[in-house]
Amino acid sequence: MSAPGRKMKLGAFLYPTGHHLGGWRHPLAQADGGMNLRHYIDLARKAEDGRFDFIFFADTLGARDAANVEAWSYSPKYTGQFEPLTLLSAIAVMTDRLGLVTTATTTYNEPFHIARKFASLDHLSNGRAGWNLVTSSSPDEAFNFGLDAHVPHAERYDRAREFATVVKGLWDTWEDNAFLRNKDSGRYFDPAKFHMLNHKGRWFRVRGPLNVARPVQGYPVIVQAGSSEIGMELAAETADVVFTAQRTLDQAQAFYADLKGRMAKFGRKPEHLKILPGVMPIVGRTAKEASEKFDYLQSLMHPAVGLSLLSDMLGGIDLTGYPLDGPFPQDLPDSNGGKSRAALIAEMAQKEGLTLRQVYLRIAGARGHWTVVGTPADIADQLEQRFRAGGADGYNIMPASLPTSLNEFVELVVPELQRRGLFRLDYEGTTLRDNLELPRPLHPATIARNETKLPSQAAMADG
Amino acid sequence: MSAPGRKMKLGAFLYPTGHHLGGWRHPLAQADGGMNLRHYIDLARKAEDGRFDFIFFADTLGARDAANVEAWSYSPKYTGQFEPLTLLSAIAVMTDRLGLVTTATTTYNEPFHIARKFASLDHLSNGRAGWNLVTSSSPDEAFNFGLDAHVPHAERYDRAREFATVVKGLWDTWEDNAFLRNKDSGRYFDPAKFHMLNHKGRWFRVRGPLNVARPVQGYPVIVQAGSSEIGMELAAETADVVFTAQRTLDQAQAFYADLKGRMAKFGRKPEHLKILPGVMPIVGRTAKEASEKFDYLQSLMHPAVGLSLLSDMLGGIDLTGYPLDGPFPQDLPDSNGGKSRAALIAEMAQKEGLTLRQVYLRIAGARGHWTVVGTPADIADQLEQRFRAGGADGYNIMPASLPTSLNEFVELVVPELQRRGLFRLDYEGTTLRDNLELPRPLHPATIARNETKLPSQAAMADG
Repeated sequence: MSAPGRKMKLGAFLYPTGHHLGGWRHPLAQADGGMNLRHYIDLARKAEDGRFDFIFFADTLGARDAANVEAWSYSPKYTGQFEPLTLLSAIAVMTDRLGLVTTATTTYNEPFHIARKFASLDHLSNGRAGWNLVTSSSPDEAFNFGLDAHVPHAERYDRAREFATVVKGLWDTWEDNAFLRNKDSGRYFDPAKFHMLNHKGRWFRVRGPLNVARPVQGYPVIVQAGSSEIGMELAAETADVVFTAQRTLDQAQAFYADLKGRMAKFGRKPEHLKILPGVMPIVGRTAKEASEKFDYLQSLMHPAVGLSLLSDMLGGIDLTGYPLDGPFPQDLPDSNGGKSRAALIAEMAQKEGLTLRQVYLRIAGARGHWTVVGTPADIADQLEQRFRAGGADGYNIMPASLPTSLNEFVELVVPELQRRGLFRLDYEGTTLRDNLELPRPLHPATIARNETKLPSQAAMADG
Repeated sequence: MSAPGRKMKLGAFLYPTGHHLGGWRHPLAQADGGMNLRHYIDLARKAEDGRFDFIFFADTLGARDAANVEAWSYSPKYTGQFEPLTLLSAIAVMTDRLGLVTTATTTYNEPFHIARKFASLDHLSNGRAGWNLVTSSSPDEAFNFGLDAHVPHAERYDRAREFATVVKGLWDTWEDNAFLRNKDSGRYFDPAKFHMLNHKGRWFRVRGPLNVARPVQGYPVIVQAGSSEIGMELAAETADVVFTAQRTLDQAQAFYADLKGRMAKFGRKPEHLKILPGVMPIVGRTAKEASEKFDYLQSLMHPAVGLSLLSDMLGGIDLTGYPLDGPFPQDLPDSNGGKSRAALIAEMAQKEGLTLRQVYLRIAGARGHWTVVGTPADIADQLEQRFRAGGADGYNIMPASLPTSLNEFVELVVPELQRRGLFRLDYEGTTLRDNLELPRPLHPATIARNETKLPSQAAMADG
């Protein structure tokens, strides 16, 4: 199923203090990581030492936990963090080859701003920018942009699709060689290589032009994470990388085959989209050490955080009255939001005899993502299995506590993957597209000109 | 009029290739400056060597010249430039003490995004961010945000005022010492030092919270440039720095007295707002060399650029048919936009016997700003005069061609100002507010707590 010599692509998905909700309390954790530039530069350089394709930032424009400030005060989530585009620009000048990917929502942004900022980051970094194109489902984001409720799912995706079209159109304002800067003649640019967008659609009217040269990569790398029907269609049409959350091999294989199978109808080749499941590795020199490390992290999760997360999953049921180490309560009231999920959780707890604490630890520890706990060889085995069995093109690695978990992965697991021939020894190219083995999109005017040439010329220009 | 020992504040207003419209064609100019990171880092470090308070970027979200692409193609304006916030973040990590100021419009942005990005830049730079708060008057910006025409003046200023209130409110989400990050107790922040904004106004409804800690400077430095009645009121109420364009001493003194005189009614002291006129210095080792330098720059302005600018000033009259070196045409058709200005220009041309080329050179060379041409001592004389005579607290220096004109100012004029005791020998502090001698705004909750203490305690906390 896997071509010989095929290599994994790896992202480092950096939450400021690590993905585990107790991670910031680890003695070695940088508890102020979210607002510590030195911390981020060290992490980025470590990821670059480890030959990661990119670092990846999540983002939010709201604080989901603000309704319960007391419980929230035990968690670093959505409190004090750098805004990711300004942060990545600072990291750009301190790194050389590492891709720089961040989330930016299409729901509460304007395409002109987004096109411009990512084009600028792509130039500042010499072709290393990536945009995780998302839609916003949280009402807490809506509240910061004049709305009383979040935008419905289908509307959001319709807007997102048009948003992506406008952004790409703006990136194509200038052809690659539009700027002459001829001091003798005084011509600054070639008017024939300037293209006004003049977009008029359902969601946006954007005349253009963009006041940034065409990005180094043509278009910055476009990442998506949607796994709904409409999200997968959008990804099959427009994404270069898809970040996923399947926890088992079966689910991963099914998603992989489904998404890659949708690409042909958009005229795209399956290898032009990389599917990278998220995974939280807990590395130990022995299996026992790894398991103890995970247990220790679990012990650091404050009950207020665990209960709050579980309460969210149960549709807002208040759990604060129940004893943490008593049996999971079977008499929970119904809630609007999560009745069937609540029933499933209660059933699991009863069957396995779990306490309330054990239930939230089970759910909250990995934040819903695949967790692998073991020696470097154990972890490499699991990553290799899914990679070879048609479940992944690589992974978005989610370090549990920072900087330690990233350091351990780079120092212990990356060499093991390299020894097995599964991961690069050095970067293949200078841009993120080069390293991800993704083609650089041609400008539409270049494509049009190629199409009027003889086929052999067109093929050469394309090569 | 000037306190003894009072020092000038200096900004370096950097257009990518310099302010003179022919500046990019100078043999020493960095013609690709707008998209050359090395160029900007060198300029920023030079400004820091020269002990400038800050570098300053203009910004636009539209291209005024896009309607006439042929003429526009002779100018670098609004073509290929880095987006300024991403650029300043990159510069932040390569500098130490230099303030980092950029324009961002309140007309086509959302306060949540702006609050967040400037707070982030302020943290990334350890307290060196400044926001030039403007409103957008150009329809070319409106066209990129779904509108058919620009927003009327009074509406824009009403929105700007509320925008500033919301942004400051978001910056005050967290008190300065809100983050505990106590690994033992598990408390990440102190709930009593968290403040939900819950703003509901005419233009904006923004609940908050902001997910960035309170800026290092309390609030980043707020710069404004409005000289209309409504703009001056807004500046008197909210600005820390005002950038102005008076070309003569009389006008500068009148503006200075008017604006400072408006501050008392907002409970502000005159010294808490710095008025910095823009000035384009052309420095020579002799007066003759300076004058030849200016003539050479003027000769580099392409007629298409000069005519296009003059045509704009005349309300869109087409000037392409007239001989450049013949007398200024006295039979120009009327236009809607600029009838009285056209009459004034025609009158000046006739009185002085100017050709068409001489007229556009007269108008376009300095782009409407004060130009001083001479030796370092001549230039220092003029800057000193306006500074001592109640016309300025310092200047926003507008280098004509980059990097040369900035280098010359730092190497030749700054030492002269320092010799006269008019400018610092080294930075006074680490933040932009420190260097501008502006107080750090206290958090409203701190002020409220101080007011409930005994007067002597409050004074100490304030000191």
